[in-house]
Amino acid sequence: MTTKVVKQHIVVAQNASGRNMNVPIYRMRGARPGPTVYIQSSIHGAEVQGNVVIYHLIQRLKDMDICGEIILVPNCNPVGTNIKAGEYTMGRFDPVNGTNWNRGYHFDKGSVEQFANTVTPEESVQGIKQRFRTFLSSAIDTKLATPWGLGLAQQLNLKLQQLAVNADFVLDLHNGPVSTRHIYVPEYAKPSASLFNIPHCIFIPNVFAGALDEATFCPWWTLQECIEANLQRSIEFNVEAFTLEMGSQEVINFTEGDVDALSILSYLNAKGALHNCDVKPDHMTRLGVMLKDYKTLFTDWGGMVEYMAKPGETIKAGEPLAKILNIDELDNDNGSRLLNAPCDLIPILHFPSASVLSGTQLYKVFTNYETLT
Amino acid sequence: MTTKVVKQHIVVAQNASGRNMNVPIYRMRGARPGPTVYIQSSIHGAEVQGNVVIYHLIQRLKDMDICGEIILVPNCNPVGTNIKAGEYTMGRFDPVNGTNWNRGYHFDKGSVEQFANTVTPEESVQGIKQRFRTFLSSAIDTKLATPWGLGLAQQLNLKLQQLAVNADFVLDLHNGPVSTRHIYVPEYAKPSASLFNIPHCIFIPNVFAGALDEATFCPWWTLQECIEANLQRSIEFNVEAFTLEMGSQEVINFTEGDVDALSILSYLNAKGALHNCDVKPDHMTRLGVMLKDYKTLFTDWGGMVEYMAKPGETIKAGEPLAKILNIDELDNDNGSRLLNAPCDLIPILHFPSASVLSGTQLYKVFTNYETLT
Amino acid sequence: MTTKVVKQHIVVAQNASGRNMNVPIYRMRGARPGPTVYIQSSIHGAEVQGNVVIYHLIQRLKDMDICGEIILVPNCNPVGTNIKAGEYTMGRFDPVNGTNWNRGYHFDKGSVEQFANTVTPEESVQGIKQRFRTFLSSAIDTKLATPWGLGLAQQLNLKLQQLAVNADFVLDLHNGPVSTRHIYVPEYAKPSASLFNIPHCIFIPNVFAGALDEATFCPWWTLQECIEANLQRSIEFNVEAFTLEMGSQEVINFTEGDVDALSILSYLNAKGALHNCDVKPDHMTRLGVMLKDYKTLFTDWGGMVEYMAKPGETIKAGEPLAKILNIDELDNDNGSRLLNAPCDLIPILHFPSASVLSGTQLYKVFTNYETLT
Amino acid sequence: MTTKVVKQHIVVAQNASGRNMNVPIYRMRGARPGPTVYIQSSIHGAEVQGNVVIYHLIQRLKDMDICGEIILVPNCNPVGTNIKAGEYTMGRFDPVNGTNWNRGYHFDKGSVEQFANTVTPEESVQGIKQRFRTFLSSAIDTKLATPWGLGLAQQLNLKLQQLAVNADFVLDLHNGPVSTRHIYVPEYAKPSASLFNIPHCIFIPNVFAGALDEATFCPWWTLQECIEANLQRSIEFNVEAFTLEMGSQEVINFTEGDVDALSILSYLNAKGALHNCDVKPDHMTRLGVMLKDYKTLFTDWGGMVEYMAKPGETIKAGEPLAKILNIDELDNDNGSRLLNAPCDLIPILHFPSASVLSGTQLYKVFTNYETLT
Repeated sequence: MTTKVVKQHIVVAQNASGRNMNVPIYRMRGARPGPTVYIQSSIHGAEVQGNVVIYHLIQRLKDMDICGEIILVPNCNPVGTNIKAGEYTMGRFDPVNGTNWNRGYHFDKGSVEQFANTVTPEESVQGIKQRFRTFLSSAIDTKLATPWGLGLAQQLNLKLQQLAVNADFVLDLHNGPVSTRHIYVPEYAKPSASLFNIPHCIFIPNVFAGALDEATFCPWWTLQECIEANLQRSIEFNVEAFTLEMGSQEVINFTEGDVDALSILSYLNAKGALHNCDVKPDHMTRLGVMLKDYKTLFTDWGGMVEYMAKPGETIKAGEPLAKILNIDELDNDNGSRLLNAPCDLIPILHFPSASVLSGTQLYKVFTNYETLT
Repeated sequence: MTTKVVKQHIVVAQNASGRNMNVPIYRMRGARPGPTVYIQSSIHGAEVQGNVVIYHLIQRLKDMDICGEIILVPNCNPVGTNIKAGEYTMGRFDPVNGTNWNRGYHFDKGSVEQFANTVTPEESVQGIKQRFRTFLSSAIDTKLATPWGLGLAQQLNLKLQQLAVNADFVLDLHNGPVSTRHIYVPEYAKPSASLFNIPHCIFIPNVFAGALDEATFCPWWTLQECIEANLQRSIEFNVEAFTLEMGSQEVINFTEGDVDALSILSYLNAKGALHNCDVKPDHMTRLGVMLKDYKTLFTDWGGMVEYMAKPGETIKAGEPLAKILNIDELDNDNGSRLLNAPCDLIPILHFPSASVLSGTQLYKVFTNYETLT
Repeated sequence: MTTKVVKQHIVVAQNASGRNMNVPIYRMRGARPGPTVYIQSSIHGAEVQGNVVIYHLIQRLKDMDICGEIILVPNCNPVGTNIKAGEYTMGRFDPVNGTNWNRGYHFDKGSVEQFANTVTPEESVQGIKQRFRTFLSSAIDTKLATPWGLGLAQQLNLKLQQLAVNADFVLDLHNGPVSTRHIYVPEYAKPSASLFNIPHCIFIPNVFAGALDEATFCPWWTLQECIEANLQRSIEFNVEAFTLEMGSQEVINFTEGDVDALSILSYLNAKGALHNCDVKPDHMTRLGVMLKDYKTLFTDWGGMVEYMAKPGETIKAGEPLAKILNIDELDNDNGSRLLNAPCDLIPILHFPSASVLSGTQLYKVFTNYETLT
Repeated sequence: MTTKVVKQHIVVAQNASGRNMNVPIYRMRGARPGPTVYIQSSIHGAEVQGNVVIYHLIQRLKDMDICGEIILVPNCNPVGTNIKAGEYTMGRFDPVNGTNWNRGYHFDKGSVEQFANTVTPEESVQGIKQRFRTFLSSAIDTKLATPWGLGLAQQLNLKLQQLAVNADFVLDLHNGPVSTRHIYVPEYAKPSASLFNIPHCIFIPNVFAGALDEATFCPWWTLQECIEANLQRSIEFNVEAFTLEMGSQEVINFTEGDVDALSILSYLNAKGALHNCDVKPDHMTRLGVMLKDYKTLFTDWGGMVEYMAKPGETIKAGEPLAKILNIDELDNDNGSRLLNAPCDLIPILHFPSASVLSGTQLYKVFTNYETLT
């Protein structure tokens, strides 16, 4: 059993020399019918571990029996990957205008509500899905053809979204700054959180802020709610989308990447994308929070910081999170001081530099979390 | 007649050395009662001409008879002013996270609507204004005191907004990239557009995107609309806010700054902030557009560009806007090509570098503009 | 008479996506024998006008009768061209390590001195030149093949230098920040300064700091001096190299580019590279200084600056160069102050931003200049 | 026994707002005579661990009996510390012009040689030292007073060097990118390498490249050699200077900082700066190389890298250093490949980002190292 990999490149931008910048697309189609899966990585240029995960996915899928099609797009932002500022990669936003590379996908709530009005009580789920996909794809095309044009991040996002628009399952592979592995899960897909081997899960509502996962699930979620409201008809589309945070940015690790790949295969297997595959989710503790309980701790001071609490650790209220050096007070008792946890929490990620201005996202933490069962 | 200037500094941030970063505040209070005016400049660090305008305003106001109080805050973003990347100032957004320095001011439509419900048919305009200002100020305080903290741009914005919250007239001084002078005017204050000596005026609706002008007028505009709807009571608060674009960034010019100062004095005089002052708006042609007709022309190619159409020029459909060099085709007819205007337009600003990636804001232009009378 | 253009691309780097970054090379070889000319532009990514000059050179040369060969390499630094930081191009140095893109060319004085010892009294000039070129080319190859590798700027520089190593005349096209046109001329080639239509000429000694012009003329100049010292034999190699500064960075202008192209053709014609060509240097005033009299004026203060003295203007000692705004003293007489010229001078270029830290190169100026005749 | 700490701030720069940027100086003078020690940290803004080391030094020295004076200057580059580009600190070079912050100290070999000619056979070592210090200090003053001014990095360096010019022992605290602890030692002070608890030592010759350690020892070393040559008089000045690399940049760690402080106290104690102190160097393996055997491994390809060999590990020729991902070849055998060690080596540091362009300093490694005894 070998599944062929079809490779293709698409142009997503042009640089200031007028050269095309392209993205590799790997397509693996099984002999059997099944869902369409879309997986991309590195929309934020410094978040590179997902590329290794896709590498391992392809190696493993080659010898597996795929149902449906799996589309893999590593290094999907050739602009962001290549913006160095000092030794690091400033790949989180367009250096020209500050636009986050993960905020320009398309979702238009109003038009989804209008579409919902065209659904009749008799229309089959399959029929609705097909019609809605055509509708979404055409909306993306229309946006891309705007006569006055679009910004670079949005052009890039829409071209990628067009690749993902027919997928049933969409995985967007990211990294945090200094981070433990965690995953964003739409609330309605909570059971799927336990299909990955990812210890920290954040459940997010039907709110669109521009990211690919939201741009994927908001339309279907909204459509479902509208139809249920309009027609009192219970309906499920089984389209899911996740942002997976595969550890820390600026780092790749092949060994961990293979573990990450297995975690994804476990999800895909559970969703019917693999035939005769025995990969199952690990038995492990998974913790979950609602988005409102996933807190960002900002500083209101500047200085130099030792991050004492490590991502993934359980911290009690009052225990130290960080120790801060004050270079102007080394001759007295204010030379250093502790910052303590305001409540019980688990740090998920922290800022990657010891040097912080006031208003820095020092930590993002789980509060009021619970164990998933 | 000399008006005293009271100077004060407030801390708005701390840098990574733990040092305070502060902002100068100049207050000039007249002997007579009158409106409160708030003027700030350089929230975007590279947009420095407004600092010179404030310099000239202070020089001139010293010898004038002020009614009420004028608060002037030059160089209001000490972080943004000091971010060099190469020889230029990367002061449009926080280099850590890409946040635009002019998008973190406070406006909460829902709470304004709730406030509107507390207004009775009998309450005086003066009473409503005073109560609403307390309400707004307290909302800003509450936000600043968020237990988990706020991002740097938002902290800075809210501290500045607190200074402006009692003002009747708020002017936020900006610059475009390579730009002619233009002004953003809320639609309800259209007549005020002709009180400045600024040739290009953009009229904007009651929509909040985070900027100081919007954060100032949206609450009052919303409150007015709610009261009119709730109580069928016609009401006017006479609070106005504008973003003035004083030419091109990265440049200061004292001579032009004095002309700009006179333009502002002409507005302030018309609004009753100056006693016995004969400064009047110039007789000049002023052109206006609705925001929807203020178009941004993005590229869908990368390359090197000569900006042929200059800011302020009248360009007919089909006339050349730009000439593009293609360095890979210098041996054939594609070595250069023209980009033509898609319709009649007036370029207001263009990108400040010849080198552009695809998705660049090449020009912002007036279309469907009309002459103000 | 049409001269064919042969186009080729060479790979000079790979980006972080592993993609090749290449440089276009245009070669025009005439039917008649003659010198070899090498012209490149944009080694500093923001200095783009030279690309337009090469465009016009190719257009004009196509219809001319070339003697020898002309090699033209526009946009010779595809890395530097594409480093945006904010809206501008941070193309003067590698953003990873600060290395100036124009400091990694090869020159080894010791080995040239050793080579000089192998020259016999009888060896023909032509023989020495041929042997020396092989020697230089092989030294570059050896350096490129260093077992532990080389930095990016040096790799790029050496690959370009290998293209230029056989040239008799080498022109490196640059721009200043905000700048008038000027040219760096090796002292021994002073008469050639008057063959270009460039008003400001700087004469530089036989000192190597890493730039292409120096890397080109230092070997020949050193060889000549050694042979003259060793063998009491007067000798001339007629190899020349120049850095041409074609106005201000971040800007291209096609009309001026054609004028610049004519200026270069005038030089090439005088040097025998064109047959039956009537392009002659303009009658114009050319001013020259020795490098030691080309002064840089640094600030020892930070602040905001209006550049009152414009590049190319004649300024007397004591006349104002700049006016400085002090945002913390707007309420008193120190709100602004003048910076005056310390001696008679001509500003050649100034810093391109109003915002300067202490230690900024405010102006570069001609002092003790003289009119070339 | 408590030693008082005297704190002072000096202005070293002004920012674009015209505000002073200052540096804290802590002076601790003992009751007994003894050497002068100068210790600074963070001349490269991202290299912050030295600040914590100085914190611990001050805490410990407070309770010790100092002979002579110890001057401590943490965070000595307030400009570099505060340049954020993305989340990291771009503090290795001036973002305006690429100048390395550690290359502008003063050393003029010719003038030292001239000074040496003024030394007579009879002059006492103490007399020469005093006269030479005055000479060096005056040369720095002269340079700082250059009529046309100096660049920012050079101004900063000279102001710091003036603080260090009278010191007998100078320690400049740095960090590598991802790095093990190592130290640069002038060849003549080889025995002192074993007085620190630092496992990796690089011995450097009498060559000046602009750094503080060189600027400190080159004059004394040169003077010594000249006097020995001129007067056949053996002489020793006992002035030493070191660059200490305290692990990785962007990180502070208080626990390790105390260990680092003890290592420095061990050196100071051996040099007579502490009375009645029992801190001794650890028994540990110290490895040393000559500078020529401290190799930099550059890439000639771009891509994404896992750093398999960790700083401090012993690697045999042929063992893997790194594994490279090729995102365009994930469908075939070239998807990943190994980079092997070209010889036996110990990695001392590696590049801090997985994403590298061609020409990147991938690793710096010890080759031909030996164990110090």
